Amino acid sequence: MEPAPDLGLGDSSLHRYLDGEFWSLKNELRRLLGGSPLFRHRFDLNLDEMRALTFQRVQFIMGLPLLKRAIQEQAEKTKNFVSRSLVIGEVLSMADMATAVKEFVIDTPCENAEKMYIGNAMYGNYAAVFAQLITKGRSQGPHCFIVPVRDANGSLYPGVTAIDMMYKEGLHGVDNGILIFHKVRIPRENLLDKFGSVAPDGRYHSPIKNKSARFNVMLAALTPSRLAVTFQALGAMKLGLTIAIRYSHSRRQFGPKAKEEVKIIEHQTQTLRLMPHLATALALTFASRYAGVLLDEDIFHGKELVDSRPLQALVAGLKAYSTWENVSCLQDCRECTGGMGYMMENRISGLKCDADVFVTFEGDNVVMLQVVVRELLAQRIKQHQEKPVSTLFRNWAESGSDKLRTSFLAFGVDTVGNLTFLLKAVNFRERVLQRSLVARIHYKVMTKREDFFSAWNSCLHHVASLSLAHIHRVTLEQFWLAVRSCPDQEDQALLMKFCLLYGTKLVFQERAWYLEHKYLTPTASTRIRSQLLDLCDSVKDDALRVISAFNIPHTSLHAPIAGITTAQAAWAFYPAPPLQPQAREGARSQQPKLGAKL
Amino acid sequence: MEPAPDLGLGDSSLHRYLDGEFWSLKNELRRLLGGSPLFRHRFDLNLDEMRALTFQRVQFIMGLPLLKRAIQEQAEKTKNFVSRSLVIGEVLSMADMATAVKEFVIDTPCENAEKMYIGNAMYGNYAAVFAQLITKGRSQGPHCFIVPVRDANGSLYPGVTAIDMMYKEGLHGVDNGILIFHKVRIPRENLLDKFGSVAPDGRYHSPIKNKSARFNVMLAALTPSRLAVTFQALGAMKLGLTIAIRYSHSRRQFGPKAKEEVKIIEHQTQTLRLMPHLATALALTFASRYAGVLLDEDIFHGKELVDSRPLQALVAGLKAYSTWENVSCLQDCRECTGGMGYMMENRISGLKCDADVFVTFEGDNVVMLQVVVRELLAQRIKQHQEKPVSTLFRNWAESGSDKLRTSFLAFGVDTVGNLTFLLKAVNFRERVLQRSLVARIHYKVMTKREDFFSAWNSCLHHVASLSLAHIHRVTLEQFWLAVRSCPDQEDQALLMKFCLLYGTKLVFQERAWYLEHKYLTPTASTRIRSQLLDLCDSVKDDALRVISAFNIPHTSLHAPIAGITTAQAAWAFYPAPPLQPQAREGARSQQPKLGAKL
Repeated sequence: MEPAPDLGLGDSSLHRYLDGEFWSLKNELRRLLGGSPLFRHRFDLNLDEMRALTFQRVQFIMGLPLLKRAIQEQAEKTKNFVSRSLVIGEVLSMADMATAVKEFVIDTPCENAEKMYIGNAMYGNYAAVFAQLITKGRSQGPHCFIVPVRDANGSLYPGVTAIDMMYKEGLHGVDNGILIFHKVRIPRENLLDKFGSVAPDGRYHSPIKNKSARFNVMLAALTPSRLAVTFQALGAMKLGLTIAIRYSHSRRQFGPKAKEEVKIIEHQTQTLRLMPHLATALALTFASRYAGVLLDEDIFHGKELVDSRPLQALVAGLKAYSTWENVSCLQDCRECTGGMGYMMENRISGLKCDADVFVTFEGDNVVMLQVVVRELLAQRIKQHQEKPVSTLFRNWAESGSDKLRTSFLAFGVDTVGNLTFLLKAVNFRERVLQRSLVARIHYKVMTKREDFFSAWNSCLHHVASLSLAHIHRVTLEQFWLAVRSCPDQEDQALLMKFCLLYGTKLVFQERAWYLEHKYLTPTASTRIRSQLLDLCDSVKDDALRVISAFNIPHTSLHAPIAGITTAQAAWAFYPAPPLQPQAREGARSQQPKLGAKL
Repeated sequence: MEPAPDLGLGDSSLHRYLDGEFWSLKNELRRLLGGSPLFRHRFDLNLDEMRALTFQRVQFIMGLPLLKRAIQEQAEKTKNFVSRSLVIGEVLSMADMATAVKEFVIDTPCENAEKMYIGNAMYGNYAAVFAQLITKGRSQGPHCFIVPVRDANGSLYPGVTAIDMMYKEGLHGVDNGILIFHKVRIPRENLLDKFGSVAPDGRYHSPIKNKSARFNVMLAALTPSRLAVTFQALGAMKLGLTIAIRYSHSRRQFGPKAKEEVKIIEHQTQTLRLMPHLATALALTFASRYAGVLLDEDIFHGKELVDSRPLQALVAGLKAYSTWENVSCLQDCRECTGGMGYMMENRISGLKCDADVFVTFEGDNVVMLQVVVRELLAQRIKQHQEKPVSTLFRNWAESGSDKLRTSFLAFGVDTVGNLTFLLKAVNFRERVLQRSLVARIHYKVMTKREDFFSAWNSCLHHVASLSLAHIHRVTLEQFWLAVRSCPDQEDQALLMKFCLLYGTKLVFQERAWYLEHKYLTPTASTRIRSQLLDLCDSVKDDALRVISAFNIPHTSLHAPIAGITTAQAAWAFYPAPPLQPQAREGARSQQPKLGAKL
């Protein structure tokens, strides 16, 4: 029997604060997964073997008492069950993304019968199918049915065809396929009847009278799984960053003449590429946690998700933002680890391939950005229901951006390093973009009589910008609130640096817009650039404390370049960096040693 | 016997102009590869099978008379042999990236004996090794040796250890490994003696006396293979764009109420994501061709590559720029084709994985950017050899940017759509960045007495910006020259639109910098944005003509979503779009039909 691996888990105030309320649950799951040989990384299997292994992994997971509890709580809608499920998804995604994607979803998404890309299509016994409900010759809009697909022996029922989609870029353990139904008969009871039911005599009944409202309610049911994708993307980001940062603190290249080469983290370009992603991962940690809490509150209070317009906007936007950030982050991690990062042993390449699909699944990101804006506008319109929409649009547009600038701008150049300045800047941007969008659509639809689709389509770039501006603003605010609430002073100071970096990054990347709107002067804009470079440099050693507090088991890290020895690829080993690169005052004794090997 | 596949190749003035001088050679190779069942796409093989297939493919290629001729010409240094080899590499890369990478390099790069990532390490019989030459106890710097690794039976020679690096993100057909040499004896004749030789009595002789100059000369030998990477990246870009654009002109989603859904190319975000990449692919076609011509001229005239500082800068910069553009392009192609783009059948995912390594191999891109600036500065210093370097730096820095602006700026807002305006803008940016970099380094080294490494390192972001600005300028200029020289008027008008789009993209993405330097007013800057959106929209149908003229055999395209039927994945088939989406005047009868199937 192999000895139990040293998982290198730690425990400090920062570890707990970053893990949040469920830190102890997360540690329990980390130990369970890390201790199981089933979760050893494999990239030498063919498609069938990989699918079979994933199936075994899913069975292992589903057999854990911890998971059974979570599923029971989900059924009973226990308080906070969504947040609890989300962190389980995050930890699972770090151990194996395919396992996290394949069943562990909070709600099984309903799929159109003609649609492709159905996960688990090649093995599942039942499918949840969205189809038009036609009763007594009348369509009542799409409803969700449970359709038996295979019998207990795995044979397809008559009328059901399954096509295997086979090879994908990643997630090889997930068996995507196409299901086609031809005159399949199912009993009336198989209609999921939360939003509509059919009586034995064929009469239709629904608590929601309006057909399109009914459809929106059903779409809102996707909200928790969209948020689950954010948590999985976040898991991948933390993993990639931990590997890339540990390697960058270990590998040396170039340096002053006749002296030892410097660690590559010392290269300005290296910190500039990695540190903003780390700040973003922290910001998203708190923003996605906030969304989970809101979701739990709504569900606990029996509120229909469709009525929570700000929440719908937040979750759709976070899904798009976090998955794009993840793609960009993992690409930088890959490049910052050079050829080593291209080797499957070092984990980053595989994560890239697995997580790449996140940007288009559970709702394509470009569509998600449109959902954000639709919800923001609907929310606004709802607040003014007494007025006709056209008046509202006009008034709204006319309130203009100049007043906004007056109320927001009151800062000299030397305040760009101030978090309040950054918060106001992202607020200003969101509001101006919102008002100008409304004005443009109003003009196109009301004055130029364009049809709404064309008007909207010709503003899509604007819509996307507003949508991201909204999410940036909420994310920075949540990060800032989390810094303020941090109980440990030293942790708080550390997080504050990254919060400043995150805000600086947001304003830096949109500085052209701020210059166009004369919100920044050219001098202030160049100062933002220097501030970004300085902050990236100043947090590069703190980064080691942060990634340590991500508390990723060494079995999940896997990468030899991150200082984890494996039997297979001794050639790729780089020693793990010490937690404090230079001896410093105030080194904390309770911090775990990162140097430990598997 | 299977019938020969219809490769869907076409022939028009645009086809020939985009293919350049060697269009007929390229067509010959396309037919040979397209007609060979060996090049059918496989993603169902394990690592050993994939390596074996790649080996067979390489053997097939090497047996082609066309290739034998090319190698003979390389040996004889026939005029234009570099350019000819480069286009062969491009066509090969579209058929199979691993085959293109594995042997078909113009010069076998010399590797350090302790370095990893040696291609062909697991099968090759010889290795070209860079090692310190020590004779009579004195080091003469690194030299290149030919070391026999395996005997004719494939058994390793004594003292040679080979470690298989196994699984990578892509390029599974390339067998990367590590070679370790322990007291391996090789005859004196195995030293490649172009830059240095050892007499039987151990005396060293070299035509280049200075040790560091000798090293630079050897590094310059990497130039052709760096340019080869650019051609391969370009091949991947063209392939990805062809698939994504054909699909976008076929697939429909969303639309005005109660009307047919629109083609997704109609979505503003879709054109905004794809069209700038297409313009970039065209720009890079002409810029990389220009570099190939310069390289051929130098070699034909027996000039040492190390002396061609502008060429060294151009090739290093093009390598970094093109490979990054390719990564970003393929990512957008993947996302713009949704879940379909994630399926291996549709080619883009596999291209992404294969081509990802380009950004860090044959010289890491961040290092390449530094090479560009080093060569630019060295060239400048060489031109003023009489003056001491410090004076030069000071004079140069003091010449300042204000004079530059005066000489470059003389444009009102309404000229932003003018190509001359865009050319001047990118020129201005390059010069200002160069002067300000020199000023900063001069101040740090001369005034503040920092060591050169630290000074340089703290300016790395600036170095990278200058480097890309240089390449952007050259690329736009070469595109513009190619448009001017285009013999067919209609082709010229088409290319001019894309050239404007490319220039607009360059200025748009750096508009913050132009605003900071007051080169653009806020009004001009927002006009650049509208211009970008308008141009992207206006070229979306022309894009079909361009991708048709890329002339990619259907066997290389492979993707069912691009209208190519395959036996394996009928479910993914989308009909190919017509060449002219709407009936228009002037449709050209000689243009090939894109609708043909394999």
